[in-house]
Amino acid sequence: MKNVVLALDAMGGDFGPVVTVPASLQALSLHPKLELLLVGNPDVISPILSASRSACIDRLTVIPAKLVIGGDIRPAQAIRVSKDTSMRVALELIKSGRAQACVSAGNTGALMGLSKLVLKSINGIERPALTTLLPHQKQGKTVILDLGANISCDGAMLVQFAIMGSVLSEQILGVSNPRVALLNIGSEETKGLDNIRHASEILHTISSIHYVGYIEANDLLIGKTDVLVCDGFVGNITLKTMEGVIRVILSTLKSSEKENKLNWFMQSINFWIGKCLFNKFSQFHPDWYNGAYLIGLRNTVIKSHGAANQRAFTAAIVQAIHAVERKIPERISARLSTVLSKK
Amino acid sequence: MKNVVLALDAMGGDFGPVVTVPASLQALSLHPKLELLLVGNPDVISPILSASRSACIDRLTVIPAKLVIGGDIRPAQAIRVSKDTSMRVALELIKSGRAQACVSAGNTGALMGLSKLVLKSINGIERPALTTLLPHQKQGKTVILDLGANISCDGAMLVQFAIMGSVLSEQILGVSNPRVALLNIGSEETKGLDNIRHASEILHTISSIHYVGYIEANDLLIGKTDVLVCDGFVGNITLKTMEGVIRVILSTLKSSEKENKLNWFMQSINFWIGKCLFNKFSQFHPDWYNGAYLIGLRNTVIKSHGAANQRAFTAAIVQAIHAVERKIPERISARLSTVLSKK
Repeated sequence: MKNVVLALDAMGGDFGPVVTVPASLQALSLHPKLELLLVGNPDVISPILSASRSACIDRLTVIPAKLVIGGDIRPAQAIRVSKDTSMRVALELIKSGRAQACVSAGNTGALMGLSKLVLKSINGIERPALTTLLPHQKQGKTVILDLGANISCDGAMLVQFAIMGSVLSEQILGVSNPRVALLNIGSEETKGLDNIRHASEILHTISSIHYVGYIEANDLLIGKTDVLVCDGFVGNITLKTMEGVIRVILSTLKSSEKENKLNWFMQSINFWIGKCLFNKFSQFHPDWYNGAYLIGLRNTVIKSHGAANQRAFTAAIVQAIHAVERKIPERISARLSTVLSKK
Repeated sequence: MKNVVLALDAMGGDFGPVVTVPASLQALSLHPKLELLLVGNPDVISPILSASRSACIDRLTVIPAKLVIGGDIRPAQAIRVSKDTSMRVALELIKSGRAQACVSAGNTGALMGLSKLVLKSINGIERPALTTLLPHQKQGKTVILDLGANISCDGAMLVQFAIMGSVLSEQILGVSNPRVALLNIGSEETKGLDNIRHASEILHTISSIHYVGYIEANDLLIGKTDVLVCDGFVGNITLKTMEGVIRVILSTLKSSEKENKLNWFMQSINFWIGKCLFNKFSQFHPDWYNGAYLIGLRNTVIKSHGAANQRAFTAAIVQAIHAVERKIPERISARLSTVLSKK
């Protein structure tokens, strides 16, 4: 198999190279056929690289870029000042054919805007979407989109999301004939907003999509659907709500450990609680499903959490490898042609 | 203090009188100044009442109503066929002055529609909202609205929700100068949908509201705000997402108990895990915060979960008692006059 070459925005995210460099080395050690182009300020990256003794360092090239796009700059402004930024240079490496995909933990809006500008959308896709794979209770994962790239969506866009989500579920998760649902506030056809009802009408007519109707938010984690479609505003709120609940539970357990630190028996109990909970819930922890696809572009772009730690950023790199190997953009394009030709 | 008289829709919800009758008796035993008018089919209610040996039964009157509004009937249709239904008769008892508030576990849309028709909105409130008190990590509660009564809301409606939420936080939770936030997908002023940004502009100009800006969904449970405002679609999805995550966690723990049923040591460990978790997380369990206010009406109406068990329905009754005692509708009306006169 040919090597996979990825361009990484080394400077993006809350921690920059302190996280992205060790994560790169970890990914290289896990994947012998991986090459990485690490884009950013060599003065910051090189000392961290030199300190490591990784044998994988020969599969890593530092590509200089002087500037960084700020975390809170608006997308339109980010695009105007994007020349020589690590994010833009990384995306240009795909365009020039040197890299096959890009990973960044930088500003989401800027990454989406620049990706569309530099790489373009797939024909038939109005707006790319932000997508992740959410673990569910039945040991599988649900593809959920959009997570915030498009805060308002019409019915046709939701249908495009459904098609892209289906391809991702099939190709990345190996689900055959994946079930597709629309997130709504009730299961009856009359429920919800106009755009959702419109999407539902269209999805009923597309035979190549296994559309199962509406799903309510309390059923997200029980494995009722393989693909969940919603607009970016609702998707973002839903995912962050889940993260918030899980973080509160983990931090509550931590504080209970402190309260009991003088009592050895309670310490043992807490150790067991921690161990059991870790095994049970670690699949739901954001670190493990870090890496959102910017899906609908002609090439693969993966957005990591801004606050990603090393493990989480490595997970995002691995996700990019899988997307390249499974030729996700090409397959979405092919699926769209099939659906459109049958209509 | 004068007695509080509540009208209960005994037939609403998934279980009807099997839950509502025992919950009524429990509430009566907890509150010696409570009187209940139990509205529904006497043939179903009476046998359950007779089987009980409650000493409180003399403060309970059965009010006959032949019909029940179905769980999935549309609000407009429900209103047309509402004559002689337990829900409508219960609401009419408020209008006629016999009861001060109503509790129902029936069809939410029908309850909202009928309440508006029978009881009317407070002057200055376009649309009443569905509201609950969500426990947070700092031992307090956040008033969250709307939870699904209005699936799309303009900026002015969100501002009305903010005012109503403030009154509820002050009067029911005793919070002085409660912080008010709008749920959004980022904290910067430029983020989000038009209606949210518009509401934010207005809230900045109202000096009697302690507006603190936007809050993201991952911060909902950490006590960053006392009142959280969003449209009904997003509120419904947010609350149900939380419920879903918590239910998955509880059921995962339950399944782990079964797996280990032959091992006494693991059984003891699980007992402790269960005990610790129950203490830590029970505050987040839907049963404990059951009872949503239909706020913005001229009288108090409380919507219980359809699937409420006895404990949860009792909690909803108790919530109605507090709302009556604190004169919530009157205080909202007064606050609105103040805000409007200052503008």
